[in-house]
Amino acid sequence: MKKDDVNALFLGPKSENEKFFKEMLIMMIDEHLQWRKDFHPDDKPAISTSEKKEEIYKETFERTKNALLELSSKLKESSMPWFSPRYLGQMNSDTLMAANLGYMSTILYNPNNCAYEGGPATTSMEIEVGKQLAKMLGYDPKKAWGHITAGGTIANYEGLWMARNAKSFPLAVKEVMPELVKGKSDWQLLNMTTDEILDLIDKTKAGSKFDEVRNHSIRGIGTQGGKFGKVLVPQSKHYSWPKAADILGIGQENFINVQVGSDFRMDIEHLKSTIDNFISKKIPIMAVVTVLGTTEEGAIDKVDEVVKLRDEYQKQGISFYLHIDAAFGGYARTIFLDEDDQFMEYDEMIQKLLEAEVMEINWPKKDVYNAYKATGQADSITVDPHKMGYIPYAAGAYVARDKRILDLISYFASYVLEEGMVNSPTLLGSYILEGSKPGATAGAVWTAHKTIPLNMTGYGRIIGRSVEGAERLYDALKKSEYLEVKGKKFLITPLVSPDFNIVCFAFNEEGNKSLQAMNDLNGRIFDQCSYKSGKVFKDDFITSKTELDFKHYGDAPKKFVMECGIPGDEWDKVKSVRVIRSCVLTPWLISNTNYLQYWGSFLHSMKKALEKIG
Amino acid sequence: MKKDDVNALFLGPKSENEKFFKEMLIMMIDEHLQWRKDFHPDDKPAISTSEKKEEIYKETFERTKNALLELSSKLKESSMPWFSPRYLGQMNSDTLMAANLGYMSTILYNPNNCAYEGGPATTSMEIEVGKQLAKMLGYDPKKAWGHITAGGTIANYEGLWMARNAKSFPLAVKEVMPELVKGKSDWQLLNMTTDEILDLIDKTKAGSKFDEVRNHSIRGIGTQGGKFGKVLVPQSKHYSWPKAADILGIGQENFINVQVGSDFRMDIEHLKSTIDNFISKKIPIMAVVTVLGTTEEGAIDKVDEVVKLRDEYQKQGISFYLHIDAAFGGYARTIFLDEDDQFMEYDEMIQKLLEAEVMEINWPKKDVYNAYKATGQADSITVDPHKMGYIPYAAGAYVARDKRILDLISYFASYVLEEGMVNSPTLLGSYILEGSKPGATAGAVWTAHKTIPLNMTGYGRIIGRSVEGAERLYDALKKSEYLEVKGKKFLITPLVSPDFNIVCFAFNEEGNKSLQAMNDLNGRIFDQCSYKSGKVFKDDFITSKTELDFKHYGDAPKKFVMECGIPGDEWDKVKSVRVIRSCVLTPWLISNTNYLQYWGSFLHSMKKALEKIG
Repeated sequence: MKKDDVNALFLGPKSENEKFFKEMLIMMIDEHLQWRKDFHPDDKPAISTSEKKEEIYKETFERTKNALLELSSKLKESSMPWFSPRYLGQMNSDTLMAANLGYMSTILYNPNNCAYEGGPATTSMEIEVGKQLAKMLGYDPKKAWGHITAGGTIANYEGLWMARNAKSFPLAVKEVMPELVKGKSDWQLLNMTTDEILDLIDKTKAGSKFDEVRNHSIRGIGTQGGKFGKVLVPQSKHYSWPKAADILGIGQENFINVQVGSDFRMDIEHLKSTIDNFISKKIPIMAVVTVLGTTEEGAIDKVDEVVKLRDEYQKQGISFYLHIDAAFGGYARTIFLDEDDQFMEYDEMIQKLLEAEVMEINWPKKDVYNAYKATGQADSITVDPHKMGYIPYAAGAYVARDKRILDLISYFASYVLEEGMVNSPTLLGSYILEGSKPGATAGAVWTAHKTIPLNMTGYGRIIGRSVEGAERLYDALKKSEYLEVKGKKFLITPLVSPDFNIVCFAFNEEGNKSLQAMNDLNGRIFDQCSYKSGKVFKDDFITSKTELDFKHYGDAPKKFVMECGIPGDEWDKVKSVRVIRSCVLTPWLISNTNYLQYWGSFLHSMKKALEKIG
Repeated sequence: MKKDDVNALFLGPKSENEKFFKEMLIMMIDEHLQWRKDFHPDDKPAISTSEKKEEIYKETFERTKNALLELSSKLKESSMPWFSPRYLGQMNSDTLMAANLGYMSTILYNPNNCAYEGGPATTSMEIEVGKQLAKMLGYDPKKAWGHITAGGTIANYEGLWMARNAKSFPLAVKEVMPELVKGKSDWQLLNMTTDEILDLIDKTKAGSKFDEVRNHSIRGIGTQGGKFGKVLVPQSKHYSWPKAADILGIGQENFINVQVGSDFRMDIEHLKSTIDNFISKKIPIMAVVTVLGTTEEGAIDKVDEVVKLRDEYQKQGISFYLHIDAAFGGYARTIFLDEDDQFMEYDEMIQKLLEAEVMEINWPKKDVYNAYKATGQADSITVDPHKMGYIPYAAGAYVARDKRILDLISYFASYVLEEGMVNSPTLLGSYILEGSKPGATAGAVWTAHKTIPLNMTGYGRIIGRSVEGAERLYDALKKSEYLEVKGKKFLITPLVSPDFNIVCFAFNEEGNKSLQAMNDLNGRIFDQCSYKSGKVFKDDFITSKTELDFKHYGDAPKKFVMECGIPGDEWDKVKSVRVIRSCVLTPWLISNTNYLQYWGSFLHSMKKALEKIG
């Protein structure tokens, strides 16, 4: 793909590609209509021509039409204009035509990927997509396992489900086949590496006692309070993680927050001291979760340092399952892959990105690069096609390094899985959390991946535009003079230099020293630049907001508050700061479109907001 | 709706309604395209006209087109012809035009119902649909709570999640606010009714200690082995239930199968003796699950008798949460509701259905009627729009009798829920298992419900046709002479008289006394009437099959095996019988279409199959 192709991939903010979109849709619909007619041509129609002329028949059509028009008017009144560069709120943007068309046309066939016979074509596509994502994330696609989920939340559950069942497996082996773990203490069994556990699975199968062992693991006996240890997650985690601890019966008291720094990345020193503290009390660590692209700040945790720490602990006989929540940031790994899908060296990458005009800025920072380089060393990863894959809702994915781990959660005799079966499983529903699932999602993701390579020449170009847009917004905010409104001066401070494509910022009136007053101000500005109710198309710009408070973040936001000109003791008192948050997913905030126009318009609209709230 | 309207609701087996379908689709697409153009008309296009003429731009279009055509050919090659009356396999049929069009057109707006701001219109629709389903199932929609899930499996998890957290709540109250449960023993606390637990929630809130109490419940401390009791589920359960016990940390050893009778309904006597056995050992019952429409046989459990039993136990101080898995059978309750949505008396109903020409057969059996009448007395219900709601995948739903139960699983301060907030929750994702979720599903279900009333005049007519088709198939099988092939005679025996719309049956050669030989025969017939791989459109009829074995069903299938002419001791030896299974969801196997043609063709194709396997 070349530079300007990106514009030909989306419908566009002004429906610029409407002609092509409609042509394609009609082509796909016609294919489907004809397919129906061609199935057993000898069968007579079930509906007669004369019947179709009856009044009652037409009335039913009218009723359908009226329901659709009501749907349309409701949608138009309040849907978010994701497609517009004016939408700078949540993780949304225009989605890919290939994905939308793939989705819409597959719906007509209504495949169900729960069982192979329910959707032979789309089940194969789902498995193919799983391998593509595994490769994208640095896994060996032959060894790995990946599939589409109903969202990142479900993928996160699946990751922790695997971790939990894995942790309890060695103790179950001790009960059923003690000869396999002879000489090992319980503590050692609670600290086996994921690879050792996977090997143990193979050995229990060889002894034909796999089922019996599984029944002695958490799967059989349930979680037993904190016996199987703690789950460590950074403060910046998505709220699906505490939900996961509840659902999986682990309990909040075994769910531990690790501090983040003022860069909103997990604090590696605090991770280490937390682990040390538990192991000194002989409390095992069930899993560590690290985040590639936090939901609120877009921060990229130092995955490489977490991996390094894990490896060091392993040498000391301490092991834990490592999961990366890359729901948001995962697809950005395409920027790091050259035209042959190889992960590039740092200097080579920076140069190639500029040469190929993927971005006009220098990206990434070195530590972000190192984090992306290390992803293949985690046990499993969550990645969301419906975020940076530009696929419509709902498409998440769970990807694991070693497919043998499926045995820990599968139902039916799936542990006799042959290589061939994993390529087209007869009952996908028995190796995943969900049951019936739309083949249309697989059709959408597959079509998008078929159209757009998962490297810097494809998705890299789209995501590159998003990163560039964010970087431009950050720079502009950083350099912006104060806004003067009714004689008052308002300064804008961005939260952090973005690791990825989220820009958070806050206004403060010059001279104001009250954090509460600053929070009020930003709340009122947000009210002017967001959707609450009524008619969405009245809004000039749409942003989102987030509250960074002590309960969730500790003192991590304090540095920022002080940068805004608020004394540190105000933070100690108020313990919460409100920031305006812009996820820049739009591909249309780059230099050769009308970036400057939008920036001017953005400043103008902020000024208008300040004027309004007086 | 009148009698023949049903034909105007589907695209049809021969794309009979293609003209209307395409018109509607184009209307909806045009509405969307115009909406984009109308948002900030002052903004310039992001893509220039000259750019669109460039070769590279056209090449990208070509790549998209090629990917779509490849998708289309894959779909056409192996998709199941759900739309055809020849498809008599899994729970599939043509889906509603209103739902397909609603789904396809909402995708363009790509709403996300996780948070209100991500899909204001579709979030409201989801809440509205939840209330409609609650009403359909016999709940008070003002008091109840319902929402769409990514499938019945997820809804089942949600039900058991509620049950599990509820069971542990009173003991947590004892730790934090002992004054609220003064004088009650632990056993009594483990046997509080769901209503009492919900009242307790209110009281802990009044004391501002709700959060602290929750942290002492399973949510906070995790499941503690079997401390909170057993989950009782009929042998006929869907496999999502043992998965649920694993995921929720309950453990298989606390997951107990209750026997089914030869009618494949839960054996109430065995349910009672199982409960008695546990309570005699002071082991509490966490939940009882009963099934309205089993996946394999379409059996309708005697919900009314389960409810009666529950009420009797409550008088003795023994309580459990009651969940109905009506994923399959739930929507059929529309047949029982008159034009004013009132549940009809039995005799009145039979007469009204005949008068209004909903069905030409006598349905339902009295015990099926009683089961449907009692649904409103369960604590919660799973129901799948993507099954008998004729909605495309994936749409399940969880519906609870009393919305206060949400507090047991919610995140963020959702327990301060106001009446208004439940009507349009700001963060739906915090009261449900899933996170991001497609607003398009809500758009689809809402449009279908808007077009088709949830009573005998609407959905009742569609499902009535399905029930009638199954009944006709059963009758024909029952009355059919043997098939003679190459001098051998083959008899067909249906498994049971269908409660609903699934017909299972098996062939046996006259005089054969070997169960293994009979199973082999049916396996080979199935191979001729099913999809394995290759080109699906070569098949004449597509059925599914199921194995009823001792491990899952105990001796329930023995009676049927003997009816096929196999001696009982053969069952005791082989302990598994294979049956061909037809879910008759198609609305086109009724008298005034070509039912007889299809029946003739079906027999012919079975004969052909027998000839082939020699």
